[in-house]
Amino acid sequence: MKKQLSIVKIGGNIIENKNDLAHLVQLFSKLDGPKILVHGGGKKASQISEKLGIRAQMSDGRRITDEKSLEVVVMVYAGLVNKNLVAQLQANACNAIGLSGADGNCILAHKRPVKDIDYGYAGDIDEINAKAINDLLHASFTPVFCALTHDNNGQLLNTNADTIASEVAIGMSEIYDTTLYYCFEKKGVLEEVSREDSVIKHIDSNLYQQLMKKGAIADGMLPKLHNCFQALSKNVSRVCIGDANMLKPGSTLFTTITL
Amino acid sequence: MKKQLSIVKIGGNIIENKNDLAHLVQLFSKLDGPKILVHGGGKKASQISEKLGIRAQMSDGRRITDEKSLEVVVMVYAGLVNKNLVAQLQANACNAIGLSGADGNCILAHKRPVKDIDYGYAGDIDEINAKAINDLLHASFTPVFCALTHDNNGQLLNTNADTIASEVAIGMSEIYDTTLYYCFEKKGVLEEVSREDSVIKHIDSNLYQQLMKKGAIADGMLPKLHNCFQALSKNVSRVCIGDANMLKPGSTLFTTITL
Repeated sequence: MKKQLSIVKIGGNIIENKNDLAHLVQLFSKLDGPKILVHGGGKKASQISEKLGIRAQMSDGRRITDEKSLEVVVMVYAGLVNKNLVAQLQANACNAIGLSGADGNCILAHKRPVKDIDYGYAGDIDEINAKAINDLLHASFTPVFCALTHDNNGQLLNTNADTIASEVAIGMSEIYDTTLYYCFEKKGVLEEVSREDSVIKHIDSNLYQQLMKKGAIADGMLPKLHNCFQALSKNVSRVCIGDANMLKPGSTLFTTITL
Repeated sequence: MKKQLSIVKIGGNIIENKNDLAHLVQLFSKLDGPKILVHGGGKKASQISEKLGIRAQMSDGRRITDEKSLEVVVMVYAGLVNKNLVAQLQANACNAIGLSGADGNCILAHKRPVKDIDYGYAGDIDEINAKAINDLLHASFTPVFCALTHDNNGQLLNTNADTIASEVAIGMSEIYDTTLYYCFEKKGVLEEVSREDSVIKHIDSNLYQQLMKKGAIADGMLPKLHNCFQALSKNVSRVCIGDANMLKPGSTLFTTITL
């Protein structure tokens, strides 16, 4: 039987709120067994960009990463957000080690080819270096990945944190029985968007199809769920969606997704 | 016999110059055996500070690190400088892993007590976690430390890169036969400051005393040499001072310092 591994991705609203982040850090630190944290930091990057007089360009909610914007996301993701997270985790006795995809050559990507839109220094993931990540876990470190990859040719690339989390989960599933947690400000996938407690406790492929037919899944949740099922189809054991409290032992109010 | 370990500290002028940095990265990547890189990035931090409208405050050449300045050095040292260095090292087949002292709890420090001057979030080193650093070396990673430490209570601290390099060298000397390289823009300790090639090839305690009596050591070099002899007195095998070319196999034009 494979050993269990937890991969937790935290959303931007948790990073922005000091108390929410402290709460998440406490719960994550107490999680049993080997674990990995993944974070972005887009909102903070936009704030710093603005202060530096660099206009954050977006297209369909995705950042267009020109050279100046890349500098900012590298500073904010790998510096400000990552290192403060690591220091807080260490204060909670979690032996965190903060990484970009370049560190230890953990996540290889290529610059997204230009089609209709030039996303600039945006990276599409080619390979997860499961051996390197496993070496860190074996040495009892807890990797904390920010939303950066590299092309192994000297270029850092801005890469969606949700995608990093699911790709890392898929890559580590060769070795581990992996659970992927998407941790955000809601309690889970909601039956009615306006009712915060209408959490659907369990979604499998059948229910997913039914919900899609009914048009019962909110717009923002659609690509997330699509990602979840893709991860599940590639050997990730289960995906959980909810707020930080889902990391509490015995917690039940969140959404579990399986095939 | 202990295994050899090289610790290379690179100065700010090398970081600033793209070609010099590329040259250093190539030579460092080719260094045989386990190795560690240490860097600062003060000049870049001052540039970004200025753009953000934060005045860099200095006292006796030392940065006073208030809350806003700490944010900037964390972004620049751990983000911009560290991750670009790591990406370039990876492109040169050096399996770099970029770290602050908080990562893996590698370097513990405390906030400098306020005496005449309040240096703010400046850290004085208490302990090098030789086990954690050695675990990384054993897993065939090359640690790249930026000039940040932590207090294990959630606080990151700005710490002089020269000091980090010598403390890491001292700490690792329990396990390794360590050589500490201070790599900067000069070819070594010069007999005459105006003659770039007047490199003193070897300095030991006796010559150091003689040179000091003669007043033959330039002001900026005095604290550096003091640090070197302190490292040597704490089991570091040798310290070398020179430009990037001293890392070339067979190179002789640099200063070697021994007890």
